[in-house]
Amino acid sequence: MTDRSFDILLMGRSSIDLYANDVGAPFPEIKSFAAYVGGCPTNISVGTRRLGLRSVLLTAVGADPVGDFILHFLEKEGVNKDFIPRKKGHRTSAVILGIEPPDKFPLVYYRDNCADIELTFEDVLAAPIPACRVLLISGTGLSREPSRSATIFAVERAQACGAKVVLDLDFRPDQWHDARAFGVTIRSVLRLTDLVIGTADEVKAGALSEDIYVSVEHSQVSGAHVSGDVLKAVDTILSLGPEVLALKRGGDGTTVYLKSGEQIEAATFPVEVHNVLGAGDAFASGFLYGYLKGWDWHRAARMGNACGAIVVMRHGCANFMPYEQEALDFIDERGGF
Amino acid sequence: MTDRSFDILLMGRSSIDLYANDVGAPFPEIKSFAAYVGGCPTNISVGTRRLGLRSVLLTAVGADPVGDFILHFLEKEGVNKDFIPRKKGHRTSAVILGIEPPDKFPLVYYRDNCADIELTFEDVLAAPIPACRVLLISGTGLSREPSRSATIFAVERAQACGAKVVLDLDFRPDQWHDARAFGVTIRSVLRLTDLVIGTADEVKAGALSEDIYVSVEHSQVSGAHVSGDVLKAVDTILSLGPEVLALKRGGDGTTVYLKSGEQIEAATFPVEVHNVLGAGDAFASGFLYGYLKGWDWHRAARMGNACGAIVVMRHGCANFMPYEQEALDFIDERGGF
Amino acid sequence: MTDRSFDILLMGRSSIDLYANDVGAPFPEIKSFAAYVGGCPTNISVGTRRLGLRSVLLTAVGADPVGDFILHFLEKEGVNKDFIPRKKGHRTSAVILGIEPPDKFPLVYYRDNCADIELTFEDVLAAPIPACRVLLISGTGLSREPSRSATIFAVERAQACGAKVVLDLDFRPDQWHDARAFGVTIRSVLRLTDLVIGTADEVKAGALSEDIYVSVEHSQVSGAHVSGDVLKAVDTILSLGPEVLALKRGGDGTTVYLKSGEQIEAATFPVEVHNVLGAGDAFASGFLYGYLKGWDWHRAARMGNACGAIVVMRHGCANFMPYEQEALDFIDERGGF
Amino acid sequence: MTDRSFDILLMGRSSIDLYANDVGAPFPEIKSFAAYVGGCPTNISVGTRRLGLRSVLLTAVGADPVGDFILHFLEKEGVNKDFIPRKKGHRTSAVILGIEPPDKFPLVYYRDNCADIELTFEDVLAAPIPACRVLLISGTGLSREPSRSATIFAVERAQACGAKVVLDLDFRPDQWHDARAFGVTIRSVLRLTDLVIGTADEVKAGALSEDIYVSVEHSQVSGAHVSGDVLKAVDTILSLGPEVLALKRGGDGTTVYLKSGEQIEAATFPVEVHNVLGAGDAFASGFLYGYLKGWDWHRAARMGNACGAIVVMRHGCANFMPYEQEALDFIDERGGF
Repeated sequence: MTDRSFDILLMGRSSIDLYANDVGAPFPEIKSFAAYVGGCPTNISVGTRRLGLRSVLLTAVGADPVGDFILHFLEKEGVNKDFIPRKKGHRTSAVILGIEPPDKFPLVYYRDNCADIELTFEDVLAAPIPACRVLLISGTGLSREPSRSATIFAVERAQACGAKVVLDLDFRPDQWHDARAFGVTIRSVLRLTDLVIGTADEVKAGALSEDIYVSVEHSQVSGAHVSGDVLKAVDTILSLGPEVLALKRGGDGTTVYLKSGEQIEAATFPVEVHNVLGAGDAFASGFLYGYLKGWDWHRAARMGNACGAIVVMRHGCANFMPYEQEALDFIDERGGF
Repeated sequence: MTDRSFDILLMGRSSIDLYANDVGAPFPEIKSFAAYVGGCPTNISVGTRRLGLRSVLLTAVGADPVGDFILHFLEKEGVNKDFIPRKKGHRTSAVILGIEPPDKFPLVYYRDNCADIELTFEDVLAAPIPACRVLLISGTGLSREPSRSATIFAVERAQACGAKVVLDLDFRPDQWHDARAFGVTIRSVLRLTDLVIGTADEVKAGALSEDIYVSVEHSQVSGAHVSGDVLKAVDTILSLGPEVLALKRGGDGTTVYLKSGEQIEAATFPVEVHNVLGAGDAFASGFLYGYLKGWDWHRAARMGNACGAIVVMRHGCANFMPYEQEALDFIDERGGF
Repeated sequence: MTDRSFDILLMGRSSIDLYANDVGAPFPEIKSFAAYVGGCPTNISVGTRRLGLRSVLLTAVGADPVGDFILHFLEKEGVNKDFIPRKKGHRTSAVILGIEPPDKFPLVYYRDNCADIELTFEDVLAAPIPACRVLLISGTGLSREPSRSATIFAVERAQACGAKVVLDLDFRPDQWHDARAFGVTIRSVLRLTDLVIGTADEVKAGALSEDIYVSVEHSQVSGAHVSGDVLKAVDTILSLGPEVLALKRGGDGTTVYLKSGEQIEAATFPVEVHNVLGAGDAFASGFLYGYLKGWDWHRAARMGNACGAIVVMRHGCANFMPYEQEALDFIDERGGF
Repeated sequence: MTDRSFDILLMGRSSIDLYANDVGAPFPEIKSFAAYVGGCPTNISVGTRRLGLRSVLLTAVGADPVGDFILHFLEKEGVNKDFIPRKKGHRTSAVILGIEPPDKFPLVYYRDNCADIELTFEDVLAAPIPACRVLLISGTGLSREPSRSATIFAVERAQACGAKVVLDLDFRPDQWHDARAFGVTIRSVLRLTDLVIGTADEVKAGALSEDIYVSVEHSQVSGAHVSGDVLKAVDTILSLGPEVLALKRGGDGTTVYLKSGEQIEAATFPVEVHNVLGAGDAFASGFLYGYLKGWDWHRAARMGNACGAIVVMRHGCANFMPYEQEALDFIDERGGF
């Protein structure tokens, strides 16, 4: 399967990400924002590309200068953007973010009527899924139609042609009409997925049902708190399809749970936290790099942890993903895998 | 499980059904319409109730006289309506139908912004799912949010408390933003279903993906034509979860396909076709009656066929469902099961 | 101006009107509905046509059998329907009505996402406004975009080419996001109108602002009760543009108020009330007939009253409008104008 | 009337305005954006406040950090923000802008489902219109419901209590479903306005109808090109109500047209153009300052031109409005009024 044209096709949201330059300032006192590119699958498309993989992105942008901004960046990075439609009458997504380490990262999504949720069956049929080794989708792409059905259709196609399917849970509660609809929808697609990536809160939101309670503090939609038992949630998810679940535990490292019951711990690399946003996508990039190289789970997760640790010291998401040699050196300098 | 309070909870759409009194007249020349109650799960709630089952309906109506019309009818029929919410700002669904036998039954759905698609998680949590032996959902209930997530959530709850789940495919292409989204969505819920009921076209629409072609003639949304191989479609559906698929073949009888590969033919009762609308729901009522009695598949399907044959000779849907003795007599008079 | 091709162009809503055949029955007990055509401007198009005027209707219908039903009827009546677009993805409007004389006429509008509110600038530009002596618009056509702007644009065009503009207030509170928006919008167009027709409640809803209170009983959206002083409201309306306001006072006859301060009373013709729905549009038809004939206000209003009285004894709207000789005979038999 | 509590109430949109820090860079190459506050009425609220007027702003923001950002700024500036509602489920508006002098200023509005278009009758009733000498509304506030009706209602209230009404045309074609709907709507409210402010293109868009052609280059929605004769447009507008129209002609100064036919030219102050965005709102601030001081039109327009010239040399909108003494000194240094 390594003779396929692309290593990984990533499907879902993209955005201009506006990161506060005034680190530590309360949101109302921010003076300027750096302009980056973001969105879970978009970040991972750049992250995997920088690590040397052949990445192709299936997102959508509007017919506006912000769309140009995103496409220009992807071009520069070498991510294949040939299958990205422009959606007239829909805006390219935008996110405005504050940075108040260590624990407040408020963010405001501009996603009403956005372009990337307009992906259709036709867009999926036009994309080179049969030419890819892995398809990655993200939870937010399942939040609304027509993207929801198109995303599941893409997964069905991937499975039909032997590509592996990775689901990044990407739980953003304000993108769902009811936070519980996230779980219902995730559980509906797990039968089609091989590998799931998420935080403890995301795993709980995906696996648990009636009694879950979701809360968001400091407008940090990327880090909703979800009630419930994470181990039970891991079991539920693995029972519904996937072979593997990679649980991102931030400063506590990563745990890889296998369907067999085995679990692998991968310690993190201790660094000073500047900005947690994007670190999860950096992890996914490194982890999938290892996965596609055929590495064992521990080594893949350590690679993911390294990429995450590098980004956590930096300002933004896609624009700050480490390159292959950079990540390997980083690990090397810290005692190796 | 027979000690549960209800035999069957039916979830999904309801409507005032306005049936042309001028049978055979082209639509523009219709002079008057009879007013009945309809909608796949609503029809089956009445059909099963008339056969003696304890039925409870989870639909929603608007705060309007048409809502009163539906609730009044359910009350009269003895279907439990205690869990039906009224949705302010949303209209009770309506359908206007022409009758031109043998083959034209144009229908017009008034379902924009309708009440029954507004069913929520809260409505599901309020409904007595744990007190039911069977939960029936229908495809149209999965066509839009919030009903889609609420319906899947109901199915998860039913499964968790040991109730059997029946899916009536109920494919109405104009209720979906893309006809292929129907299949994607159906396939997502099959893992949770025990028994599927549908016509050949519905089964194909649910099982097949990329190359399907859907067409509707004479505005007969209830009988869309779908391209593809029905046996392959049956296999696909059974491979994704259900134990049983009952294929309604109209005048050609019913075939019950089991996961084991076995298939049971149940001949129909030949009658003169007056109006095919509602016959499928009558079949479902009789079939589920047999299922809940613990009958074998052939006998259950024959009961379904009898109920369908009776309704096909009549004018409308819910209002014309046969009573238990009536159906048994009908079978008896025609040589028995 | 009498050499123009059409006497009157009517712009706005149309519908299939389903009238209870069970007169007097509470809504939930209705057994069947007669199928007619309705909608304020559509009714008047037929009413004026039957009186001998050359009428052209600018409404819109969906690509559905109900649209065929309406067009078929217009064709039969001889109303020009050449400029009526079909709006894909939008439903032909429908109304379901109960009849409980003397005072309950519940009605349920199916107008969510309806075709006739989709009239655009292009539709107006295609219509033969310069070839008409009179343009009639109705309040409901101003309730939502794009019809709102298109309707005002039509009025501007009519004024520019010397056609008279008639506004039928047609206040249906459930068609507005806020009942007060009706008044705001009506007042915005009065500068462009020559003649206003309405009931006391409609006149108050159009003229008064902050303190008005609107209530609807028995779901009779066609007869909302509006608080306030009707004479003050008449003055307000006449101060904002129109030369004439015809106040329909039901059984109490009609009062025609002129900008000059003069007011003309026209007594009604006493008949037994069978169904008030449509009587107002019959009045408008007769009144505009007289207006276009150049009759004095009293004679025109008496003609309107006669047409209204005839329809009030009948079952529906457009289908029951009187013909010219019929109305003149009716008046003659009752002592003349 | 000078004993009223406020000099001016401004109603309409507000936003976080993100201005490219990389002046001259093509949009896709922008590295960071300065964060300011903007939106026509919001800019003028700050502009008039800095000139010493007592300003009160009636806009709406979302329940998000961007809303905090705007309110925090208004607080600091001393603009009364007590009547600004937060709209749950609606986003605070945002604008992202590039700066490529002399003639390209692309901008991207994030206004889908935005908070400020959700202003209602209740919000207007809660605002201190009777306590204000002047009410200013802007064209964009008329683009959609519920803001459209609420804005006209505010104007009716202002007129009823003797406040003067100013309309800033603020034509942003992408905020209208059809560019011609702008004109239709503007003409509907002119009877209620005393003073109109706009550019030549805005005046043409407001006054002309069928044959106008609107085009936008370089995504500069703030500077649409509109076909037609500006003098004819000025006449049309003045014939429909207002006493005065102030035509902003950019580098060519300002012409004030009176209903009497008189026209007053006010030369501009030549400066180097850094960024035209916000200059028009600075003009309005200075012009209304003079108007409220009772100055003659020439002097008021020169004050407006001075404020505009100062802002044109600067980076943003509201944050760069000149203070009273600053503007007066600027004029003084350049030869006086």
